[in-house]
Amino acid sequence: MTSDVTRRVVPPTGPVVGMVGAGQLARMTQQAAIALGVDLRVLANSFDESAARVIADTRLGDYRDLGALRAFAEGCDVITFDHEHVPTGHIEALAAGGVAVRPGAAALVHAQDKAVMRERLTAIGAPCPAWARVASAADVEGFGAEHGWPVVLKAARGGYDGRGVWVCESAADAADVLASGTELIAEAFVPFEREVAVLVARSPHGQGVSYPVVETVQRDGICVEVIAPAPGLDPEHAAHAQHVALKIANELGVTGLLAVEMFQLPGGGFVVNELAMRPHNSGHWTIEGARTSQFEQHLRAVLDLPLGSPAPAAPVVVMANVLGGADPDVFRRYEHVMAHDPGVKVHFYGKEVRPGRKIGHVTALGADLDEVRARARHAAVHLATGEYV
Amino acid sequence: MTSDVTRRVVPPTGPVVGMVGAGQLARMTQQAAIALGVDLRVLANSFDESAARVIADTRLGDYRDLGALRAFAEGCDVITFDHEHVPTGHIEALAAGGVAVRPGAAALVHAQDKAVMRERLTAIGAPCPAWARVASAADVEGFGAEHGWPVVLKAARGGYDGRGVWVCESAADAADVLASGTELIAEAFVPFEREVAVLVARSPHGQGVSYPVVETVQRDGICVEVIAPAPGLDPEHAAHAQHVALKIANELGVTGLLAVEMFQLPGGGFVVNELAMRPHNSGHWTIEGARTSQFEQHLRAVLDLPLGSPAPAAPVVVMANVLGGADPDVFRRYEHVMAHDPGVKVHFYGKEVRPGRKIGHVTALGADLDEVRARARHAAVHLATGEYV
Repeated sequence: MTSDVTRRVVPPTGPVVGMVGAGQLARMTQQAAIALGVDLRVLANSFDESAARVIADTRLGDYRDLGALRAFAEGCDVITFDHEHVPTGHIEALAAGGVAVRPGAAALVHAQDKAVMRERLTAIGAPCPAWARVASAADVEGFGAEHGWPVVLKAARGGYDGRGVWVCESAADAADVLASGTELIAEAFVPFEREVAVLVARSPHGQGVSYPVVETVQRDGICVEVIAPAPGLDPEHAAHAQHVALKIANELGVTGLLAVEMFQLPGGGFVVNELAMRPHNSGHWTIEGARTSQFEQHLRAVLDLPLGSPAPAAPVVVMANVLGGADPDVFRRYEHVMAHDPGVKVHFYGKEVRPGRKIGHVTALGADLDEVRARARHAAVHLATGEYV
Repeated sequence: MTSDVTRRVVPPTGPVVGMVGAGQLARMTQQAAIALGVDLRVLANSFDESAARVIADTRLGDYRDLGALRAFAEGCDVITFDHEHVPTGHIEALAAGGVAVRPGAAALVHAQDKAVMRERLTAIGAPCPAWARVASAADVEGFGAEHGWPVVLKAARGGYDGRGVWVCESAADAADVLASGTELIAEAFVPFEREVAVLVARSPHGQGVSYPVVETVQRDGICVEVIAPAPGLDPEHAAHAQHVALKIANELGVTGLLAVEMFQLPGGGFVVNELAMRPHNSGHWTIEGARTSQFEQHLRAVLDLPLGSPAPAAPVVVMANVLGGADPDVFRRYEHVMAHDPGVKVHFYGKEVRPGRKIGHVTALGADLDEVRARARHAAVHLATGEYV
């Protein structure tokens, strides 16, 4: 049924948090908001978006329109984000008008612009691959000559899930992307052992916490699996990675969550790959797997409440993304998944199923890595495709 | 702000569950529905009710009006309940019209009418106190003479949280309630050691699961604390209590959750006190304390999905209700509670604070009963009153 209904917006009973964007991150934030008695409002493009489906106070508007943002912020105690696409200038304008925006523009720009991020991380001594701004074939040629090939080109703004990244074996490979006029940086190709992520939270008064370091398994640039904690990670290396992430959060003045994606190098060192300042796919395991979910943690941080315990709830937690397959009838496949494994936790985002799209995730908890991993994979693959693995 | 807004009801992406009633049970069911991708619709009296605040698809209507129920059920895959007040005849009429109602009228009546419940439990051999229907002072006098004083009078319909229960030392004590014309039963006063509850779920195709037996601590007829599992309970006694609850669910044809409140007798036996067929206060601990929350379990059961694991997530889980105090500013007190104990989980129902009203609950998990209990109590009392205990 599609029909217009009228509903009354009633006075809130708790703090009002306005989240710009209505994807699955806002949707899962609603679960935490319900518990805390926080009134969560979202700015959506349409009422069929993932979070708009489950949040009573959904407002429609364009996040690129400052007027729409101002109207949305009216009556909110704090504004935060489901994505990083709001123009920096708009965030500055909101803050200048007295709106509490967390993270603020000065911090968020580091998750919006990879050139700005690399400059700042380099300045504060956070580990980065060799990098440079590039604008021409000669720049790329020169970077490759100095740091070796392949050269990784990245769009400074707008890339995600592997989009906006090009691995170039020669300057000729870079011709098309250079011709597009996209602002680019070049990075040395890092021969990493694995990818890990560190999720930290920081509140306005400066409290910080770090979740355990997790391993993120990517396929075609998309995260398919997260293992918490990262298996076999030396405790000293783990502490170092957490220190790096907390230092970045502090130096950048992050308020809310900061996810730091890192490459782990042979020998145990790390270099920072990407930053995100919002709930992050690498933290979905925390919903059941940690004492405080990342979504609750983000709300606590942006409301300047004391942060929650990031302690894990089981020795091993594995989250596997469910990517849309050819058959959209995911619900029919709940039966097998739930009967096969009564302990696996299913999360479905209420999104239209399209091949390759992140439409949900599953989480398994236990004591044995191989067993827990197999359980999560079985459930995720079956939900996506109907196959049995 | 109070204003009317228009929102579009969009086609669902998953099964649609309609829950009649919009209190905190529906509110917490929404957290589970979000994860499962179930579209939860509630029938509310007003948009400021606990669940109406957080559920996009909120319909206004009177659950005593069959027409309103029929309109509400339109487009729902199944109808279920946040409370037991819908007239039995209305539920039968919905079912006769082809609506899947779970639990059905024939089961639910046992949670609506204590006389019907006692008759049925007696017939199936479930342990009950001595009881009888009573309508006159002579009936009460006769019951007291046979089973001893005090005699407990209960309204057959409509009581909850200690309301509708009168402990009478003599027939004279019963005069007022007899004069009111309320349909009554008399029960022998049970000199119990403690109160426990067993929460089970049963699905239409007959799968059943039982959560661990919990101890419920009451004050003035209101549950103030739940300890999971019930401390010091003999495993054989626990298994017996679970067997009784599963048998009741099966014999009564319950679909969804069944909470069986019991008195534990000196020596270890049990008698059944009350039944509820919905998520129940004695199961709030399962949100963080069990692998499957009672709210997810209820959705799985009414949708005839395989049931989830009821395994506990920690050796000891304590839930304490937050009862409204004199100062309604609960949020100001979050700061102390969260700073004092980063692991305690706070749930606030978005309800107006009134003295003695259940406005939220807290849950603590751990290994040591006294410590976990003290943590939960500290948080609940402080949130309610600002006191430090």
